Amino acid sequence: MATISPLAPDRFPDLPAVPGVRLAAIEAGLRYQARADLMLAELDPGTTVAGVFTRSRCPSAPVDWCRRILPAGRARAVVCNAGNANAFTGRAGETATRLTAETIARALGCPADEVFLASTGVIGETLDESALAEALPVLAGSAATGWEEAAGAIRTTDTFSKGSGRAVGDTGGALVGIAKGSGMIAPDMATMLGFVFTDLAVTAPALQQALSASVAASYNRITVDSDTSTSDTVLLFATGRADHPPILGPSSPGWAALVEALDAVNLDLAHQIVRDGEGATKFAEVVVMGASDDASARTIALAIGNSPLVKTALAAEDANWGRIVMAVGKAGEPADRDSLAIWIGPEQVTEAGVALEGYSEERATEHLRQDEITLTVDVGVGEGEASIWTCDLTNGYIEINAGYRS
Amino acid sequence: MATISPLAPDRFPDLPAVPGVRLAAIEAGLRYQARADLMLAELDPGTTVAGVFTRSRCPSAPVDWCRRILPAGRARAVVCNAGNANAFTGRAGETATRLTAETIARALGCPADEVFLASTGVIGETLDESALAEALPVLAGSAATGWEEAAGAIRTTDTFSKGSGRAVGDTGGALVGIAKGSGMIAPDMATMLGFVFTDLAVTAPALQQALSASVAASYNRITVDSDTSTSDTVLLFATGRADHPPILGPSSPGWAALVEALDAVNLDLAHQIVRDGEGATKFAEVVVMGASDDASARTIALAIGNSPLVKTALAAEDANWGRIVMAVGKAGEPADRDSLAIWIGPEQVTEAGVALEGYSEERATEHLRQDEITLTVDVGVGEGEASIWTCDLTNGYIEINAGYRS
Repeated sequence: MATISPLAPDRFPDLPAVPGVRLAAIEAGLRYQARADLMLAELDPGTTVAGVFTRSRCPSAPVDWCRRILPAGRARAVVCNAGNANAFTGRAGETATRLTAETIARALGCPADEVFLASTGVIGETLDESALAEALPVLAGSAATGWEEAAGAIRTTDTFSKGSGRAVGDTGGALVGIAKGSGMIAPDMATMLGFVFTDLAVTAPALQQALSASVAASYNRITVDSDTSTSDTVLLFATGRADHPPILGPSSPGWAALVEALDAVNLDLAHQIVRDGEGATKFAEVVVMGASDDASARTIALAIGNSPLVKTALAAEDANWGRIVMAVGKAGEPADRDSLAIWIGPEQVTEAGVALEGYSEERATEHLRQDEITLTVDVGVGEGEASIWTCDLTNGYIEINAGYRS
Repeated sequence: MATISPLAPDRFPDLPAVPGVRLAAIEAGLRYQARADLMLAELDPGTTVAGVFTRSRCPSAPVDWCRRILPAGRARAVVCNAGNANAFTGRAGETATRLTAETIARALGCPADEVFLASTGVIGETLDESALAEALPVLAGSAATGWEEAAGAIRTTDTFSKGSGRAVGDTGGALVGIAKGSGMIAPDMATMLGFVFTDLAVTAPALQQALSASVAASYNRITVDSDTSTSDTVLLFATGRADHPPILGPSSPGWAALVEALDAVNLDLAHQIVRDGEGATKFAEVVVMGASDDASARTIALAIGNSPLVKTALAAEDANWGRIVMAVGKAGEPADRDSLAIWIGPEQVTEAGVALEGYSEERATEHLRQDEITLTVDVGVGEGEASIWTCDLTNGYIEINAGYRS
């Protein structure tokens, strides 16, 4: 059992119930022993759904399945197994997704095309169909469980369970998400999954609009090592059980509250994933301003946040700002070397392209000794801004990933 | 003193003299003690020059200097110091480049605009002008030295000196290069420099054409950690001392021999840089075929060669081919998951998008136990091919880069 990340929250949060969502989790023994590894969220009839999936050219079978059924916008369940990604499994992978969806559909009395699927774990191994065929009816018939148990069942190399939730403004509804991901890394363990539930009534197109924007501002702004999984999936379900006029789009009452709650929950979950980055001992925000536009700022911020040299300097608590200059330079985006300004925490390090007179390496190092670090860069060409979140790169990362399968 | 890389060649190669090139190297004490750290190559009048520089948006002062003087195509000297990159040093950096070029120009009796410069080392520290002003005349007046001493003087975190050379077909000329770089990494130590010399007579435009193509097929196909230096510089000098008709371009006799020698020397130097990758214990060739075109094949090969998860698997000698699937998927280039084929060394691992019947993980692991590894991927969509070279990612990388400045 891996040690819990030093950056983990003290405990799993208290989360509201979401009417219309019923959770179950069991020990199916598909890979892990003595822990739940199969999760079901059963959803009331009328639930709408939105999804965002990996950009990988080699997506897993469950991603293919979800992409195919998503356009109808209706969901009655989501099933997730941990330990096997069902990716790069060819026809056997397809068969396993169909078997899973059909078995759950039979148990719930709904069409298979309303059962969403996700799998996370090792790539290239076939799922054990007979174990699955045995476990799924047990799952469907088991007693309801809570958010923490559901979040625990979808973990792989995660060292803590991830959840976030809140009331949605004054709509009377709630919104809760659970996620897994030990960094954006470990595609072996097929990385990032997020399931978010609300009891608001929202049309599928409105839900998709809200989700796509929210993912761009949360999960797509975190990085541990720039590797992209075959299985990344975020699904948002709206059961419609709350008592309010349906949300049809940005002009509906409730839209702003929905977006605010969704953004807050997704950002919280995204930060929890970085805090569980493999081997991480520092949580860092990289803020880029003065870029030609926001997209350019994001590219520069990710170049800094992905640089192995910046990340090893964070691990070493070394105020080696030359590596930040390097990363800005390699991003390939407009930047004015001769007006570049860099801050480590509150300490300004450079100004107008040279080390700042009076810069205190001691004060910068002081900031780097903390668990939570902020690096700020003004690239001096425009008004574009973006923040991303990353962690440091330590021997722990190498040990986990050079030793994982054995 | 770092341990010599386990992948280093047995010894520095025997290299031919290049008439028209006179080398010098001294201990200037600009950063290092008890080793040469300042190198001069004096070139006969009439020498032509070509150059390729970093794409960084924050280039060093010497890169700015070289870019400015290169269009004239003439060179009488190249000077290189190790230990300080003279990057992100503002006006002081410019002053140091001018001082260096003018001091050497006075000693050699040539225009300052024919003195090429390179600096490699820490970013953001001002060069000590008085130490430089003292050392440069000593350098210009010192006795001639050999290729190995010159290659030694430009090292930073390199664990061995890098050189390569050969006769140029039957032209009667020779071509020799020296390089430094401990990976494409360590931009702190401002990474990759290459100086290549030939006594052939080649016009500057022809030289540039040959160099640009050769760099694309050598230095631009290696990676250690995807970081890009502020100072990367490759310069090719032709002294014209060999007795043959001048090479004006691809239709001249001698062009093919020049290109062949240049490509062989640059590829050899590029491989030596990977072999000195920080912490490297494995040298790996990644071959991608069946891509939509050669550029797409190169992008996919670099996605594999840069993936921290693939590189930690190499370090662990773990035939974890799911990580190769992941890297192909994340490259974003056309690839057909369902016809993807992967080989680890001679052992075929997957076929048509699933694990190959009869694949032996034992035989694949056997191959990974060697120092030199080949990964081959057929992405199944076209005829594009490319090879790139990389190394593994080990605790040694973290230790070097989390501890370097202190």
